[in-house]
Amino acid sequence: MLLALLQENSAVLDVDANCRAIAAAAKTAAARGADVLVTPELFPVGYAPRRVRAELDTSLLPALRERLAGIARSNGIGLVYSLPRITAQGDWQISATLLDASGTSLLSYGKVHLFGPDERAAFVPALERPAVVEFKGIPTSLLICYDVEFPEAVRAAAVGGAELLLVPTALGHGFDDVPRVLLRARALESQLTIAYANHSGEEEGCRFLGGSVVAGPDGGLLAEAGTEPQLLYAEVDPGAAARERQIVPYLDERRPDLYRSWGL
Amino acid sequence: MLLALLQENSAVLDVDANCRAIAAAAKTAAARGADVLVTPELFPVGYAPRRVRAELDTSLLPALRERLAGIARSNGIGLVYSLPRITAQGDWQISATLLDASGTSLLSYGKVHLFGPDERAAFVPALERPAVVEFKGIPTSLLICYDVEFPEAVRAAAVGGAELLLVPTALGHGFDDVPRVLLRARALESQLTIAYANHSGEEEGCRFLGGSVVAGPDGGLLAEAGTEPQLLYAEVDPGAAARERQIVPYLDERRPDLYRSWGL
Repeated sequence: MLLALLQENSAVLDVDANCRAIAAAAKTAAARGADVLVTPELFPVGYAPRRVRAELDTSLLPALRERLAGIARSNGIGLVYSLPRITAQGDWQISATLLDASGTSLLSYGKVHLFGPDERAAFVPALERPAVVEFKGIPTSLLICYDVEFPEAVRAAAVGGAELLLVPTALGHGFDDVPRVLLRARALESQLTIAYANHSGEEEGCRFLGGSVVAGPDGGLLAEAGTEPQLLYAEVDPGAAARERQIVPYLDERRPDLYRSWGL
Repeated sequence: MLLALLQENSAVLDVDANCRAIAAAAKTAAARGADVLVTPELFPVGYAPRRVRAELDTSLLPALRERLAGIARSNGIGLVYSLPRITAQGDWQISATLLDASGTSLLSYGKVHLFGPDERAAFVPALERPAVVEFKGIPTSLLICYDVEFPEAVRAAAVGGAELLLVPTALGHGFDDVPRVLLRARALESQLTIAYANHSGEEEGCRFLGGSVVAGPDGGLLAEAGTEPQLLYAEVDPGAAARERQIVPYLDERRPDLYRSWGL
C-alpha cells in the first residue's frame, strides 16, 4: 500500500482554497499510485481553534464533507481529513474521517486528548476508543495530533488490531522530538505503521514544524519531511507488523491485569 | 545529583570477580563525587538465566548482599545491584535493589516482564507495581531491562511520583533502537530521568550491546556509552522533571478512566 501525506499551509477559514489544495494533492498522489492521502488536523478550515469556533458556519459542514468525498471519488484515492464535528448535545469536537476511493466513510474518530488552552476553549474531548477498520487489507485506525503522544492511545488502537495508524496533526515549531523520537517509539512499542501529517508555515500566529513522518513497526523512519510544504510518500509492507510482532511479542507480553491492579 | 553507570562484562558465576569489578567502579565513581552507581541486570552472578538457576548456591545470597552493602558503605556511595531472589513460595525472580551510601536498602523491585524462553525457564515474573522512594531528595524508582520497553511500566513509576528511574539491563547486540529511541521516548513521555546500565561483551554465548544511556525528562540524552566497558556519568538536575511537567503536562492529561473503559 502506498501512503501519501500532505504537508501544507492551510488558509484559516478559506475553505475553498484549502479544498483546492487537497484536490491538487489528491490528483498528484493518485497519479503516482497512492492508495490514500492523509491531510493535517483541521486542514480544510485551518488550525485556529478559537477563531474557527467563533466564525465557522457549521451549516456548511455537510456540504464540505460532500466536497471532500467528491475529491476522493473523482481521483479514485482514499482520503483522511479532519474537521470540527458537532455532537447531538451541541459540543464541538475535533474529528478525523477515513474515506475509501469511492468517497464512502469507513471510519471516524474524535480527538480524546486536547492540547493547550485554545483547543480546550473551543472543543470538548471525545471519549470513544479508536476503532479499527479493514482498509485495503490492512487493519487501520485513526488518532489526532496530541493523542499519539500518549502511549495509551496507540496501545488502544494496536490492542484493537490496528497495523496502520493515520494521524492528522498540527504540531508547533520546536517540538522536533515528537516526530523524531515519540512517533518512532510509538510505532516500535506497538509494532504498527504510523503516518503523521502536519501543517507547515504559519496560521493565526502559530508557526508549525512540518516534519511529517511515516514510521514502520520496527521503529524505523520510512519517510520524513522537512519544514516546507510537500507531498510525502511511503510504501507500507502489509506483512511488516505481523512479522515484528513475531520477533518481539510486545502486545502479547503486556500485563493488562497488573496494570489495572496498579491503578493505571 | 551525579549518577554513575557501570557498563561492564560479567563473568558468569564468578561472583568474586564480579564483586571486585563493582568495588573498583564504586571507588572510582565515589572519588569523582557520584551519588549512586547503577550496575547491570544480574551482574554479580552473570547474565545466564538457565545456568544461574541450575548452578547458583542460593545459600550464598545473604552473604553476597552483605558484601555489596559493604561496597556501598566503605566507598560512601549509593548502589543499584540486581540479583536472583527466592520468594517464600520458592519461586526465583530477577530483582534489583537500591542501597544508600551507608549500605542500607531503600528499595527493592522484582522484574515483571521476563524476556525470552531462557528467562522464563529460570524465573517467574514478579507482580508488584514499581515503588518510589526519596533518594537524596529525588523520588526514585527501579525497573529491570525488558520492563522499561513497556510504556505502562514507566507510567506506573511516574504516576507513583518517580522523577528518576534506575534500570539495570542485559540488552543484546542488534537492539540499538531500545536505548536510542524507546528509552528517550520513555523519559520524554513520562518526564523523568532514566539511567539504563547494560552489560558489554559476551556472556554464555550472548553478545551484549553496551550502549548504556541516561535520558532526561525532555527526551534528550544526558550520556551515552559505546560498546566497550566504561563508567558513564550524568548529572541529574533535581528540578528538571517538575519543569518539564509544567511545560507539557502529560501525566495530568492522561485519561486513566477512559483507558480502563477501553479495556487497557
